[in-house]
Amino acid sequence: MEKLSPAFFIGKEGSGIISFGSGQPDLPPPKEIYEMLPSFNRFKYGLIQGDENLRRALSREYENSDKDNFVITNGASEALDLIFRVIANGEGGKVLVHKPYYYSYPHLIKAAGMEPVYTETVKGKIDIEDFKKKVKDCKAVLINSPSNPTGRVQDIETLKEIERVTQELDIPIVSDEVYKDLIYIRENYMLTGPHIITVNSFSKTFAMCGFRVGYLYSNDKELVRRVIDLKSHTSMNTSIISQEMAYTATKVPKDKLKEDLKIWEERRDLICSLLEELGLEFWKPEGAFYVLPKVKNPEKMLRDLYEKHKVITYLGEWFGAPGTIRLSYALDKEKIIEGIGRIKKYLEEEGEI
Amino acid sequence: MEKLSPAFFIGKEGSGIISFGSGQPDLPPPKEIYEMLPSFNRFKYGLIQGDENLRRALSREYENSDKDNFVITNGASEALDLIFRVIANGEGGKVLVHKPYYYSYPHLIKAAGMEPVYTETVKGKIDIEDFKKKVKDCKAVLINSPSNPTGRVQDIETLKEIERVTQELDIPIVSDEVYKDLIYIRENYMLTGPHIITVNSFSKTFAMCGFRVGYLYSNDKELVRRVIDLKSHTSMNTSIISQEMAYTATKVPKDKLKEDLKIWEERRDLICSLLEELGLEFWKPEGAFYVLPKVKNPEKMLRDLYEKHKVITYLGEWFGAPGTIRLSYALDKEKIIEGIGRIKKYLEEEGEI
Repeated sequence: MEKLSPAFFIGKEGSGIISFGSGQPDLPPPKEIYEMLPSFNRFKYGLIQGDENLRRALSREYENSDKDNFVITNGASEALDLIFRVIANGEGGKVLVHKPYYYSYPHLIKAAGMEPVYTETVKGKIDIEDFKKKVKDCKAVLINSPSNPTGRVQDIETLKEIERVTQELDIPIVSDEVYKDLIYIRENYMLTGPHIITVNSFSKTFAMCGFRVGYLYSNDKELVRRVIDLKSHTSMNTSIISQEMAYTATKVPKDKLKEDLKIWEERRDLICSLLEELGLEFWKPEGAFYVLPKVKNPEKMLRDLYEKHKVITYLGEWFGAPGTIRLSYALDKEKIIEGIGRIKKYLEEEGEI
Repeated sequence: MEKLSPAFFIGKEGSGIISFGSGQPDLPPPKEIYEMLPSFNRFKYGLIQGDENLRRALSREYENSDKDNFVITNGASEALDLIFRVIANGEGGKVLVHKPYYYSYPHLIKAAGMEPVYTETVKGKIDIEDFKKKVKDCKAVLINSPSNPTGRVQDIETLKEIERVTQELDIPIVSDEVYKDLIYIRENYMLTGPHIITVNSFSKTFAMCGFRVGYLYSNDKELVRRVIDLKSHTSMNTSIISQEMAYTATKVPKDKLKEDLKIWEERRDLICSLLEELGLEFWKPEGAFYVLPKVKNPEKMLRDLYEKHKVITYLGEWFGAPGTIRLSYALDKEKIIEGIGRIKKYLEEEGEI
């Protein structure tokens, strides 16, 4: 039997299938990003660092920054890849990651020749004492709040303490904030400091996953220079037309984001109440669009749900959370209800409820 | 004084400046690639391996291939980066490169944790005896014909011998054929065999540099699988809209390519005759759009040409060819004549002619 992985399910989200799998918004991007397409006529290389208009627009969103603090990348993925390769500098080192984690993190860290080390969390919240113990011999830290796959948001006091401790130890933090505009409980608290490298993207905020526009923001000019240098060999500029669409997205009034957030929150509340009715245990998501319920036999459940009930779910184990499955609720309410209904049927058949 | 590098000149190709620098076509892409833009409305993730229509179209250009043999990448650069990282497999190894070489090659090889080793060429043509000696303890070979920066095309007998020797030794060849449609002396001879990984791109053939669509082709299914796996973490799919434009380009009648080739050849002949008039020594380009004349004091010449004569040229040393400068003749004839005129003036002032 083919080994299950997120890649296994790509392209299988078709007829009659309800997918709680892939983590991408179903709500469409702002219509404005398509409206500029008919007049687009450029074709030459763009700047490796990224389009100046786009970087200037971003710098207006980040206090005390200017366009030189940003590098536009092929999604947040490439930003992370470039950053870890630059930090590794061919010499390796440890990167501290909090569990559960986005499933690409360990792969990215290892591909850069580094070693992921893990700090456990309490209900998805970082245990600052464990963090302080483990961070000491690390070369970098990776923070992801709101988290994929837990949807949990780190407490502001914790984030401030992490800022302080790592600055004292002079350890860079890579802060993956791609879900910063999808928080239900408060505004985003952006990690700040000379040692912070913020990673972000147009994928989740503007539903632009397929266009692959991400970026990094850092006040460390030497790091920025080295990232650009590496990117000049490994991929050159990010697609000029994707960047132009992203630039257009920066000009869209923020009301749409707020309206979208309301829809996401309703979905969050819906799936939580349905999972509660099933008696499943989970940490209430505070951001993003994932929930990670505990289940008895995750691997069997995943296969049976897919093969017998036409429901796609992801294995928590891929994210460092064995004993759980990950549900992405980037679906309209009808589908959420239908999908959880099918999960209920599975659980009943198994005698688990 | 700021260190000169190709990156130094990016964005400086402005008013009054004649640039023989960056290697990108000035002839526009097929107009059809823009015509589909108004109807484009997708936004979700694409397949990591690349759009199926695009891969199917490519497979029609490569004998005995199917769509599963291709991976679409962010330009040829990303294809090379992924391939070397997969071949290195965290264990390093040597990669044989012929001199002069595209300036990113040593960087890419080192960034993958590997070591570039060089075989010298005779007037840009591979010395097969030196090649055979050096290839034995290499983990991979990188071939680039037509070559950037020399414009030289390897002889078919040499390429066949390289195919044979490396297959016997079971050493993969990475064949960067991005200039395959810009050859003046014959049709392209594509390296073939189970151990060949062909890298190509829409950048030079279709003047689509800024859109960043490249690809690799290989019959080694395990290698393809590992490349996709790595890309799923490091950048995910290539921009869906750039890919759609590339797919449109595959449907354009090949006549345009032939018409373009005629223009390139006229430019080649023009710049060669002008350089001959100046008494400069060079190898006649047989493909691509670069020529590498020998000069007396390349670094001084580069600076003076830029600062005093508003002409951008590249240092041969960046490409492993000290004692030369690289001229890209992706310019209309008037600019070529004006630019070489300014170079003549410099040489006269220096008393070199």
